Amino acid sequence: MQTAGPEDVSFLDNRRYAGLLAQTKAGAVILHPDFAEKVPEGCIALAVPEPYVGWAKISALFYPFPQAVPGIHPSAVIDPSAVVDASAEIGAGAVIGAGAQIGAGTSIGALAYVGPGVVVGRDCRIHAQVTLSHAILGDRVVIYPGARIGQDGFGFAISKTGFTPVPQLGRVLIGDGAEIGANSTIDRGSAQDTIIGPGVHIDNLVQIGHNVNIGAFSVVVAQAGISGSTQIGQGVMIAAQAGLTGHLKIGDKARIGAQSGVMQDVPTGEEVLGAPAQNVKSFFREVITLRKLAQSGRKGPKQGSDKE
Amino acid sequence: MQTAGPEDVSFLDNRRYAGLLAQTKAGAVILHPDFAEKVPEGCIALAVPEPYVGWAKISALFYPFPQAVPGIHPSAVIDPSAVVDASAEIGAGAVIGAGAQIGAGTSIGALAYVGPGVVVGRDCRIHAQVTLSHAILGDRVVIYPGARIGQDGFGFAISKTGFTPVPQLGRVLIGDGAEIGANSTIDRGSAQDTIIGPGVHIDNLVQIGHNVNIGAFSVVVAQAGISGSTQIGQGVMIAAQAGLTGHLKIGDKARIGAQSGVMQDVPTGEEVLGAPAQNVKSFFREVITLRKLAQSGRKGPKQGSDKE
Amino acid sequence: MQTAGPEDVSFLDNRRYAGLLAQTKAGAVILHPDFAEKVPEGCIALAVPEPYVGWAKISALFYPFPQAVPGIHPSAVIDPSAVVDASAEIGAGAVIGAGAQIGAGTSIGALAYVGPGVVVGRDCRIHAQVTLSHAILGDRVVIYPGARIGQDGFGFAISKTGFTPVPQLGRVLIGDGAEIGANSTIDRGSAQDTIIGPGVHIDNLVQIGHNVNIGAFSVVVAQAGISGSTQIGQGVMIAAQAGLTGHLKIGDKARIGAQSGVMQDVPTGEEVLGAPAQNVKSFFREVITLRKLAQSGRKGPKQGSDKE
Repeated sequence: MQTAGPEDVSFLDNRRYAGLLAQTKAGAVILHPDFAEKVPEGCIALAVPEPYVGWAKISALFYPFPQAVPGIHPSAVIDPSAVVDASAEIGAGAVIGAGAQIGAGTSIGALAYVGPGVVVGRDCRIHAQVTLSHAILGDRVVIYPGARIGQDGFGFAISKTGFTPVPQLGRVLIGDGAEIGANSTIDRGSAQDTIIGPGVHIDNLVQIGHNVNIGAFSVVVAQAGISGSTQIGQGVMIAAQAGLTGHLKIGDKARIGAQSGVMQDVPTGEEVLGAPAQNVKSFFREVITLRKLAQSGRKGPKQGSDKE
Repeated sequence: MQTAGPEDVSFLDNRRYAGLLAQTKAGAVILHPDFAEKVPEGCIALAVPEPYVGWAKISALFYPFPQAVPGIHPSAVIDPSAVVDASAEIGAGAVIGAGAQIGAGTSIGALAYVGPGVVVGRDCRIHAQVTLSHAILGDRVVIYPGARIGQDGFGFAISKTGFTPVPQLGRVLIGDGAEIGANSTIDRGSAQDTIIGPGVHIDNLVQIGHNVNIGAFSVVVAQAGISGSTQIGQGVMIAAQAGLTGHLKIGDKARIGAQSGVMQDVPTGEEVLGAPAQNVKSFFREVITLRKLAQSGRKGPKQGSDKE
Repeated sequence: MQTAGPEDVSFLDNRRYAGLLAQTKAGAVILHPDFAEKVPEGCIALAVPEPYVGWAKISALFYPFPQAVPGIHPSAVIDPSAVVDASAEIGAGAVIGAGAQIGAGTSIGALAYVGPGVVVGRDCRIHAQVTLSHAILGDRVVIYPGARIGQDGFGFAISKTGFTPVPQLGRVLIGDGAEIGANSTIDRGSAQDTIIGPGVHIDNLVQIGHNVNIGAFSVVVAQAGISGSTQIGQGVMIAAQAGLTGHLKIGDKARIGAQSGVMQDVPTGEEVLGAPAQNVKSFFREVITLRKLAQSGRKGPKQGSDKE
């Protein structure tokens, strides 16, 4: 809102910024009906119950999702046994391995690597320098630059005589419409598959261990990590820098707060926070309890002298 | 065990899943002798004291470690002064710098970059899109996609007049059989070398600062970070998302728990947890103390009214 | 100091290592005047008030910053509409998109990708396998291997009917002399720009969300993360693995401790630590309070029996 001019559409979603509304020079502002009467003169209020969704839809009209430009760059290296749809776009320096399949309308970015046998569905966006191996992708999947999908997980057995490597034999299955952030890593399954459900959104620098299964429309924010074989329900929100140990079950619509350290199963709909993670209200009760205690300890001697 | 059929071998290692044993349709299950009599009819119990090690060894018989396919892909760019063994495999689009050496039986993945003067030993697996610079690798080293080895560390002196860059002059030395996970970063030494001992296993998205020295067969799990000049003993376990400040000494066989924030030296064999990290038992005693206190504080008023 | 010989210059900066001074065989040691009289015979004491700065300056005389070697490697792919200065160096396999501009004396590393319209200033070092898109870089910017600059941020509106993608329309603007570490990720702005001020130093594996603005000469250490739209002042220090939620304001010269979880604005010059982050002294007071409490609780029963 601060930089928009009379030719621009802006939006007000975070109420924290409501005070800036009076100063906007935007031609129109998308906002909640509560604020519609507070726009300055000359500014049109576009009132909708969910302003950020409104902004998303309006800006997509002006900036539609870019289409693949069909064709294979002459510098790309395509194995003769790979099957690339004629409507797909293969960027400069990309490498496509034996038996790989690239679907209609999909673009493979510059210097990306698609390993042998990998299947990429329709209308996917595989950005620059991504690695795909041992993976099957649905349609409309977006993989941001530098993500690593399908390498061997951290698989070795520790015994008294040292480490024994455990062959990693599974795949990564990624559902329709899922998105994987820049430089995130998703390991292939060991004896089963690692599964990323449809519509799952994974942010940058996230680590997903082998055999993890993430249910549809769950969200994993930046730098979070999920250890091997943990099962995440549908519609779960895992905030930034949270860590989950292995072999857990996280129920549908659970919410894992930022930097949480989750060491136990989380029931459906539960919101947890802290390390070890616990119910969010209990967490804040502990924070307040300790804060008061440390402060009273500090005041303690003074109170003592007051009594005298 | 849940998906295996009569032609398959499965395993039971985590006792948490023991309840599933009765339902398995696997032809054979590798398990601890304690469970050998609980396999269903028609299933062969392969009882061994360390079931996961047994699984590792048996599955390696069926899926042996892939061998390098000797040859240089025509799209690779090899400096004329580099020395590539005739039995090595160089992938599509890989770039090998001046004076680099690639040992017998080693494979360099597609689009990987091996900088000037880097030495890679025998039977190594350098996966796609890895960067190696200022590094000397032993034999049987595995580097997963996107790992960055040997770039300048975070080296600058802060004074009243601003930042003065400090030339980073050391190397990264990686011992035989070490493994480095996807998108992990290991900075070159500043005035000495960064050293990764033989058999060390580093997971994905780990940060290793300049001059760090990690002793043989230590393990660093995903998203952990070790600051500059810290010395890690042998057989140390550093769990996921742990952070160690610089210039510390961590004794042999120490165990650093997940998300720990280690600000002091850790003695040999000690197990620490929390931030600031402390003895693991002390950590959990504090967790319980605070939990009880917050709960009693909550009940406090009620107890007060009981007294009336 | 431990490995230097009579032909070498060494330095003593961390007082922790002062005990090693007597044993050094270095020809000269840069150190604080306090230690100048403690060098062994035959060793020259180079006494300066800031020894690490002195080391930086002296070592830079011996190891000057490498210059770009002008020229375009024949395997690089340069769009005909890109403008590459004749004094720039373009590495093997690099890809430069339509309309991109590469300034004088700049080097673009092997297998790096510079997207359409990206502007890179003079004397920059863009290392191997970096991705640049939707970005404008000043002069003397250094980007380490595998960093991802300018991809779409985590932008979607969540409503009752699911996720609506929000077009990401901004850029990343990077000031003169800024440095971005290996495998770090900086998302492009959504409706405005993401801004990295001049002289900012960002370490490895750091996440910077969309619309973040980092003031001049601030430092962000490894694996820290800054969520969308947070504003960081000048000269701020953000230590390793810290996390900041979105839409915060961090004052000039504030210090955010390692692993802090910052959920509120931080005033100018304040030092915070912990999760939720608080004043560093308050944090340690709480740590000590809880530690004492847990220890006294442990002794409690014994004291009870003493009373009998």
